[in-house]
Formats: sequence, structure tokens, C-alpha cells
Amino acid sequence: MSATGIYTAEIIPEPQEPLDSPEAMERRLRWIGATRYHSLHPFHHLLHGGKLNKGQVQAWALNRYAYQSIIPIKDAVVLSRFRDRETRLEWRHRIEDHDGIAGDEGGIERWLVLTDGLGLSRDYVESTRGILPATRFAVEAYVHFVRDRSPLEAIASSLTELFAPNIHRERIAGMLKHYDFINPDVMVYFSRRLNQATRDAEFALKYCLEHAKTPEQRQQVCDALAFKTDVLWVQQDALYQAYVNGMVPPGAFVPGRDG
Amino acid sequence: MSATGIYTAEIIPEPQEPLDSPEAMERRLRWIGATRYHSLHPFHHLLHGGKLNKGQVQAWALNRYAYQSIIPIKDAVVLSRFRDRETRLEWRHRIEDHDGIAGDEGGIERWLVLTDGLGLSRDYVESTRGILPATRFAVEAYVHFVRDRSPLEAIASSLTELFAPNIHRERIAGMLKHYDFINPDVMVYFSRRLNQATRDAEFALKYCLEHAKTPEQRQQVCDALAFKTDVLWVQQDALYQAYVNGMVPPGAFVPGRDG
Repeated sequence: MSATGIYTAEIIPEPQEPLDSPEAMERRLRWIGATRYHSLHPFHHLLHGGKLNKGQVQAWALNRYAYQSIIPIKDAVVLSRFRDRETRLEWRHRIEDHDGIAGDEGGIERWLVLTDGLGLSRDYVESTRGILPATRFAVEAYVHFVRDRSPLEAIASSLTELFAPNIHRERIAGMLKHYDFINPDVMVYFSRRLNQATRDAEFALKYCLEHAKTPEQRQQVCDALAFKTDVLWVQQDALYQAYVNGMVPPGAFVPGRDG
Repeated sequence: MSATGIYTAEIIPEPQEPLDSPEAMERRLRWIGATRYHSLHPFHHLLHGGKLNKGQVQAWALNRYAYQSIIPIKDAVVLSRFRDRETRLEWRHRIEDHDGIAGDEGGIERWLVLTDGLGLSRDYVESTRGILPATRFAVEAYVHFVRDRSPLEAIASSLTELFAPNIHRERIAGMLKHYDFINPDVMVYFSRRLNQATRDAEFALKYCLEHAKTPEQRQQVCDALAFKTDVLWVQQDALYQAYVNGMVPPGAFVPGRDG
């Protein structure tokens, strides 16, 4: 909470520098991450600090599954926006990372190992019928965004991965330390994403630095990243409201009753 | 809060009756309204009961503007789904109700009279730059829904208007009674909607009762209404989390600082 009684994420004044170079754009992108990435959300501090009970961790994993499961669909839409084979080839491995290939189960399957470990049934998780409506609207907004905006903005919206490795490291360490219902086997999703996210973020950043050639295009790249931080933030906010404040919307997962 | 410490909206067991007649469908629709309509949300009780301060009422009006302002866009998409002139003619008056015609300012303009009265600048309100990200995702989900689903589901998603007149009456009486910054002039939006919503709801209900001919189609109608109650509920939830719990997301309206 700030002095005014209103919580806001870390407030660092927005740089006033014009976006007249790739370097200026990269500084702005890193400022957006430093002030809006969901690692700043109180729900993450509770999760990583061992302050949640098992039902609350179930709710988090259940809702986050809905996000994970839409990523290959989102990436297929991104891929479909590019006429050049090279970009399509580069992007295709993201679908493989999530959906798997022969001999590798992929990220979605690894996420189900986590929800299995938390005692949720696969049928319930995969149906997504218990997820929060805000989760559903946020993840669908991501698919609509990459379909409706320019190909440059579609790629730029993935730039949150620049900030992911830190949160994954914190999460692995914090959850293993604090929760007796979490063990290394169910955290494989995160350990695998450490390398994937770094590689993906490097490609996307390089692409945006090269292809955003005007101040207007650089602003679009920054706005796309801000949009994506909203997609992630809304999910944390909705979890907090439902499972920390205890105001579960009609039809959503109730720990101990559903799952 | 229920005995388990988890708040949920009014719980009335779902009727197990199969949807094999229009009457059974209407009963199910009324059950959905009775258990999921946003009049059940604690934020509404605070608003109508005079428990909010001016900044919180500003936040509500600002976010609700974003919903109002997308309605004629949503209705234009619905209209575009119909090949028959009759349904298009019937639906067109909804766009007029919101956007106005010569000599009648329309619903969006009447909403701006309310935000004017609350001391928010039109530029700030119309830009929607201070709205909650959950509001944006929810109202955009409504537009995507009426574009991507069947024409029957597009019409069915408007059925929340069946339940609107009561909430409008409560709101007019409660807000005039409790808030010295609210007067009848700024509440004209709601007094006008009382008649419009009743007429619109009657058409939409009649349409769905006639055109949903199979149990599957009747289920789609019910699901469309449930979807729409989620669109409204998410907005109340996000307002509660930001302005009652005091966790304002990055970039969103801060009372006293923005507006």
C-alpha cells in the first residue's frame, strides 16, 4: 500500500525519452517489465513465500493451466501471420515446446503433472470449467490480440518472456522450500521453461529491435508488451480476489468441493 | 461468506430438468439470472447502500463507461450476422438507443453526463486509458462472442436485460438517497434504460424461445446468458479488488490523482 492507501505496482516514473532508436525502445521495454510484470503482484509473493494453503495453490495451478493450454493456439495464430518461411520456422518450435513431439511430452503435459500432483483430476482441469471468468477473458484476449494487431505487435506481445527466468527461479526455490505437497518431479515445467524462455525472448527482442523502424512502431511494440503484462496481471488479481479475499465468482472452482 | 469461508453468489441448486421445451429453457434462464446476475455482487450492495466514497463511485462510472461505449459496436456486429431485414430492423434501434439520433443524445452521452457530474474530464473518460484491464478484456470478450458464435447465441447473450430493470430501480433510489454528489439530472441514463431494457429483453427472449428448437440449442442459449453474466461479474470483481481492497493495477485510475 502506498501512502494514499492505494496499492499500485512499483512506481518508477516513465522515461520521457523519445523512442527514436532501438536502444531507447529497449530501455522503455525494460521499464515496462520493471513496473508492470506480474512478479510484482502480491499473489506471487504469497505463492512463493509459502503463505497459501493447498486449495489456493490448486486454484492457481488450475487457472494457469487455462493460460498454458491456449499458448500453442496463440502461437499458431502468430505463425499464420507471417509470409516468410524463416519466421514461421523459428516460431514453430514454440508450438512444439508446448504440445510436445515424439519422445518429449511438452509443456502442457508437464503442467498436468503439476495439477496431478496437487490432486486435481485431469478431466476437471482439461475441461477448464472451473476457471475464473477473468482468466478466460484474459487468455482469450491474448489470442484475439495476435490475430487482430500487426505481425510486429503479435511478436512483441511475447516479450514478457524477457522477465520470466527470474520468476521461474524464485518459484521453483520458494515452492519446493515451503510446500510439503510440492516436489521436484511436479516442478519440471518450470525448470524446462528456464532455457526455452531465454531463447524465445532473445529472438523476439531482436526481431522487434530490427523491425520497429519508426517511433510509432516502437510505441506499438511497447504497448503490446504493456497489454501482455495486463493479461498476466489480471490473472493474479482474479486469483487474489477469489481465493485470498474469498469472493469466488458463480461457477468457479471451490477448494474441497471441486476438482 | 458461506460457512466454508468462501463467498459465492446465491446458491440455488441447478434444476435437473432437461431442456426439452421452450418453457424449460425459460425456467433455466431465470435460474441463471437468480444465481449469477451481478446484482448479487457485494460491490453493488456497497454502491447502492451508500458505502462508497466519491473516488470509488468515479472508478465505477469510469469503468462502466467502457462497457457502455462498446455496446453499439457489439450491436452492430450482431446486426451484421442476420440475413433477414426484419431482425436487422428490430436490432438497429439498439444502436440508436446508445449512439443517439437527431434530437436525442443517446445512452453514451447520458453516461458522460454522469461522469461529468462526478468531476471526471471527458477526455480522460472517453480515452478509456484509466480503465481496469479486466474491464477491457471483459467488454472485448462480449464483442468477440457475438462475432464468433451463432446468431442465436449472439442474441441470447443480451438476455441479462431480463434482470436489468430491478437493478436500475434499486440503483436510482439508492444513489440519490445516499450520495450528495448524485442528483436526478445525472441519473437520466438509468431512468431511460428502464423502458428500453424491458422492450429489448422481451424481443430477445421471444426470439430465443422460438428459434432454439433442440435441447442443444437451448443449452447454447443458456450458456450464452451465463457467459454474459460473467462479463458483468468480472467488472464488479475487478472494481472490488482495485477500489475496495485497494489493489489498483499498474496504469489504472487512481482517485484524486487521475481523471
